[in-house]
Amino acid sequence: MAVIRFGVSVESNLLERFDEVWKERGFVNRSEAFRNLIRSFIAERELEERGEVVGSLVILYSYGTSGVDYRLNEVEHAYWQKIISSMHVHLDEHNCMEVIAIRGEGGEIRKIADALIGCKGVKQGKLVMTPLRME
Amino acid sequence: MAVIRFGVSVESNLLERFDEVWKERGFVNRSEAFRNLIRSFIAERELEERGEVVGSLVILYSYGTSGVDYRLNEVEHAYWQKIISSMHVHLDEHNCMEVIAIRGEGGEIRKIADALIGCKGVKQGKLVMTPLRME
Amino acid sequence: MAVIRFGVSVESNLLERFDEVWKERGFVNRSEAFRNLIRSFIAERELEERGEVVGSLVILYSYGTSGVDYRLNEVEHAYWQKIISSMHVHLDEHNCMEVIAIRGEGGEIRKIADALIGCKGVKQGKLVMTPLRME
Amino acid sequence: MAVIRFGVSVESNLLERFDEVWKERGFVNRSEAFRNLIRSFIAERELEERGEVVGSLVILYSYGTSGVDYRLNEVEHAYWQKIISSMHVHLDEHNCMEVIAIRGEGGEIRKIADALIGCKGVKQGKLVMTPLRME
Repeated sequence: MAVIRFGVSVESNLLERFDEVWKERGFVNRSEAFRNLIRSFIAERELEERGEVVGSLVILYSYGTSGVDYRLNEVEHAYWQKIISSMHVHLDEHNCMEVIAIRGEGGEIRKIADALIGCKGVKQGKLVMTPLRME
Repeated sequence: MAVIRFGVSVESNLLERFDEVWKERGFVNRSEAFRNLIRSFIAERELEERGEVVGSLVILYSYGTSGVDYRLNEVEHAYWQKIISSMHVHLDEHNCMEVIAIRGEGGEIRKIADALIGCKGVKQGKLVMTPLRME
Repeated sequence: MAVIRFGVSVESNLLERFDEVWKERGFVNRSEAFRNLIRSFIAERELEERGEVVGSLVILYSYGTSGVDYRLNEVEHAYWQKIISSMHVHLDEHNCMEVIAIRGEGGEIRKIADALIGCKGVKQGKLVMTPLRME
Repeated sequence: MAVIRFGVSVESNLLERFDEVWKERGFVNRSEAFRNLIRSFIAERELEERGEVVGSLVILYSYGTSGVDYRLNEVEHAYWQKIISSMHVHLDEHNCMEVIAIRGEGGEIRKIADALIGCKGVKQGKLVMTPLRME
């Protein structure tokens, strides 16, 4: 397999920090760290195109903020047939973590996740997708 | 052990239906069915007095009804240190089932459960308590 | 509505304790406490005959005991299309609480619940059923 | 801020696929896609060093495979004070998805996650960490 060398431009402090982190994580050199990032990035995208997958969306929000409770429930019910169930943890007096299990086509799951992450009041959201049928 | 016979007054149609049900459930006679009900009733109460227990509260509600989403979240966060986590299932376009795991003294769990069941918009609520330390 | 008075036989100490508990719980007399118990007993049964319901089964077990982890998973997978999801809480080094949400006909849910409660190693199990469509 | 240009070596087909994906995802050029990947990679690492965080570990496994049910339960109970609760979804006759909510120091959460992902029979595992206190 042909190996290609190409140039990348990044801010110097970002590159410095990156170099520290990949060393700590045990990569042998910068290119290996990049190959690893590239592979994950592609794998994630391919899942979206792969037919039925199952997604776990982790969101953090502060309850009560501008009706976020209601809005999340509204979006979830609009897609209730795709959403298996969710687990809710009260982190403290104000903050909630919710993990929402979603089943469907990759693109569809991404759309539902984006709608939930986009609700005003949601501070953070991260979607993990995994293929339903594994070899 | 002395056995006592005493009288109970109930509506005739209620008694008729009761007789059908205990026969279907396989009790040998009416008194045996009553003894079973009495024992469960007492056991439930004793759990409340027994120190640390774990409760599972099952509630059903229709999302969006008069701010029920927000109110439930508000009550749950007021007791967030007692609430372990909850699982939410979207039953259809409107209805939700939520199972809330609560850890604490029996009486306290009962109080939290009553506060949640009492939220306007909650259609049904049932608390199951179990002792934390089992022999 | 005609009211019928009939006799019930129970052990004297059980009756004494019952009298204490219904007073604490605020019932006005013994017959009222019984009517309440009868109504719940009938309502539970009627749910089983009512078409689609949703059940929450709460079980307690000690992990590792004679393969209980595997057996529960085996039973749950045999009925995987009826089981929505489950929530698991680790109560301490050994004990687990699991709440399993099941959707189906009442009789079927009862059957699945009995199969899970019957797994060797399960210390306690309680099923709460609720109608899927509420008026 | 100084921008540095440096070289990276990757297999030509991996680079081709990467170029397709970042275009689809809407990045303006290859360097921007890399900067984005670098930032996420660093952010993830910094969470591990940041004190108390909450992690959601998503694992997929096939129940029954070489005692995986028992082993997962064993590891989870060893860390039961850090594990808040878990949600389990039966994907089909054999496959399970489990989302485990863990609370603790970042490094500790990573260790628990690695122990669970490393259990024989686990096909896939992905950890999402989020800071407990958000600004």
